[in-house]
Amino acid sequence: MQFAKRLQNVETSAIREIFKLLGTPGIISFAGGFPDAALFDREGLAEAARKAVLEQPAASLQYGPTEGYQPLREQITSRLHEQGAQVAPADVLVTTGSQQALDLLGKTLLSPGDKVLVEGPTFLATIQCFRLYGAEVISVPTDGDGVQVDALERLIAEHRPRLVYLIPTFGNPSGSLLPLARRRRVLELAAQHRVVVVEDNPYGELYFDELPPATLLALSATVPGSRDWLVYCGSFSKILSPGLRLGWMVAPAALLANAVMCKQFSDANSSMLAQVTASEYLQTGRLAATLTNVQQVYAERARLMMERLRAELGEALAFTPPRGGMFIWARLTGAGGRSGDAAAFVRRGIEQGVAVVPGLPFYATEPDPATFRMSYATVPDEKIIEGVQRLARAL
Amino acid sequence: MQFAKRLQNVETSAIREIFKLLGTPGIISFAGGFPDAALFDREGLAEAARKAVLEQPAASLQYGPTEGYQPLREQITSRLHEQGAQVAPADVLVTTGSQQALDLLGKTLLSPGDKVLVEGPTFLATIQCFRLYGAEVISVPTDGDGVQVDALERLIAEHRPRLVYLIPTFGNPSGSLLPLARRRRVLELAAQHRVVVVEDNPYGELYFDELPPATLLALSATVPGSRDWLVYCGSFSKILSPGLRLGWMVAPAALLANAVMCKQFSDANSSMLAQVTASEYLQTGRLAATLTNVQQVYAERARLMMERLRAELGEALAFTPPRGGMFIWARLTGAGGRSGDAAAFVRRGIEQGVAVVPGLPFYATEPDPATFRMSYATVPDEKIIEGVQRLARAL
Repeated sequence: MQFAKRLQNVETSAIREIFKLLGTPGIISFAGGFPDAALFDREGLAEAARKAVLEQPAASLQYGPTEGYQPLREQITSRLHEQGAQVAPADVLVTTGSQQALDLLGKTLLSPGDKVLVEGPTFLATIQCFRLYGAEVISVPTDGDGVQVDALERLIAEHRPRLVYLIPTFGNPSGSLLPLARRRRVLELAAQHRVVVVEDNPYGELYFDELPPATLLALSATVPGSRDWLVYCGSFSKILSPGLRLGWMVAPAALLANAVMCKQFSDANSSMLAQVTASEYLQTGRLAATLTNVQQVYAERARLMMERLRAELGEALAFTPPRGGMFIWARLTGAGGRSGDAAAFVRRGIEQGVAVVPGLPFYATEPDPATFRMSYATVPDEKIIEGVQRLARAL
Repeated sequence: MQFAKRLQNVETSAIREIFKLLGTPGIISFAGGFPDAALFDREGLAEAARKAVLEQPAASLQYGPTEGYQPLREQITSRLHEQGAQVAPADVLVTTGSQQALDLLGKTLLSPGDKVLVEGPTFLATIQCFRLYGAEVISVPTDGDGVQVDALERLIAEHRPRLVYLIPTFGNPSGSLLPLARRRRVLELAAQHRVVVVEDNPYGELYFDELPPATLLALSATVPGSRDWLVYCGSFSKILSPGLRLGWMVAPAALLANAVMCKQFSDANSSMLAQVTASEYLQTGRLAATLTNVQQVYAERARLMMERLRAELGEALAFTPPRGGMFIWARLTGAGGRSGDAAAFVRRGIEQGVAVVPGLPFYATEPDPATFRMSYATVPDEKIIEGVQRLARAL
């Protein structure tokens, strides 16, 4: 059987090999990218699902509008208002997870040979998703404060990309937070170079101590012309539950209309059972308490992991302390004559009974082979302590 | 903003204009393609959803395998066994409605310029879905018994299509049923010409009086080599509820692996809340009774509509009586010197307060402008009677 040419643009993920090993008994995994499902509001969601079916059967048990369940679009709009953004329900498309938002952006915007700029490192499913539409994906250098905006400007001018994809708030895998001044600069570049900028924001509500800077979406009101080039992707997966498989996209009208058209032929509409359940749940007002708990638990786990990493691995490891989100992105410094090869380090970690993810697959171009990603989100305290000890042994 | 070239291959659906008019007060709609949500098992599904969240939270509230929830894959396999097909759970990919199965087939198999053969007429979202992947979609002539297999063979030889897409059982919009001999012939053509054949089967369980012939999937065991070229798409939308947004695809291993890879970057996995709910529901054994009721109600509505059409419109209208499914596909014969222009007839119908769908958009090529589609699935008896009277006035 002969397959489509676009499949030649993607390779099987290097990360798969790691995940195969996670089944090994006794292994402590810092490799996951999942939220901790035990922190979600089981009772609240069970009741919301029951109510969705019994009280809104005409909506929850039927096909729905491709754009999304109208009450949910309104609730998403209200939450974005609370976060300082000016959005109308008609600007919102409900998607089957924010992964589908990326897929629809690829389908709507990218022709083979088009260029896309992403942070180096970035979410690896984004790289593969855009490559499947034939795009050439190029990394923009980052530092502990996210994307370097001078480099971004230079690469926009050099490559004339069709779009720029960023996770400005607690990025995956970087954990980094783009400061306010850089955010403004990104928006100015969007308007000036007339290039689509995608702000992917699944982690923005998972802050530890203080609120992150305003989103690009909120800031766009203060940067003339920028909103016409801005796409915002949000998700319920990290705050309500990934099991619903619901995200959303806010985009300029012409782009949103094309994304709706493409979604019609991709999956027609996202699960109405899930959408009505999410809407019923948001109506109860229970999300705030759940979210506060998630923030506190992740913050404590992050602090413990950082403390143990410093204590056990010391100057052999460099990382920017995350101020939210789910990840610590670290770099082997090579201090004390140790190897800076993260792939070898990851293999030795597996032998010691601890899993982390090597950094290479997170780079579209110009990888840093000394990097790797750890998540603390689902790991209880005693396993964090033991896992870091094993990492120290692997070193 | 500049959009992807692939968007130039699709036009806004002509059907949209009709659907806009359906909001008109008092209109009787035979235009829908939806099942009757009132016939679904509300109590059973509410309890299944509640149980899914409370008793299987680690599955229903978390990300899941791209391939689908394993217990659901097993249940789908069992149901296919009961329908005579030899399938293993590993052959099954759970999709976000069967629309996503079509999208994944496009992504996996179609390069720009590839040709696809479909029934003329066929499901219009299939035509648009494949065109978005750059395919040239070509109609194969049909009659009251579905696709004409001699014409199919000729067009396969002429066009060397990448795939052939068929709805052999109670097709949309045709309502027609492909006889056993033609089914065998289709499978022989697949094996002989080494061409992928897609059997889309969302309506197969909605038979009225007698079981339809075996599916291509079941028959493929008796036609050497055919299974290597056969893809089967199923759906829970017409038998359990479209609100779950769950379908599935059975395909040869290499194709399935590529479809899983593409799904990973399309929506990662289908809603786990929906998948675990469907699984819990199937476990209760309540589906059989619901399905029997749906079959009976649709059968009665179909009989009434056919009887009224014959009585009120007589020889002005030709149609093959459906033996299952949701649709009557009719043709204006032009008898008595009346116009055979279905588009004009549809407009006059709207003026009289009844909506049907003109046939044109269901043809990829060589449309028959005298055709139109009616659905009886959601229409109560008295509205069927009144609606057909209005159609007679429109004539």
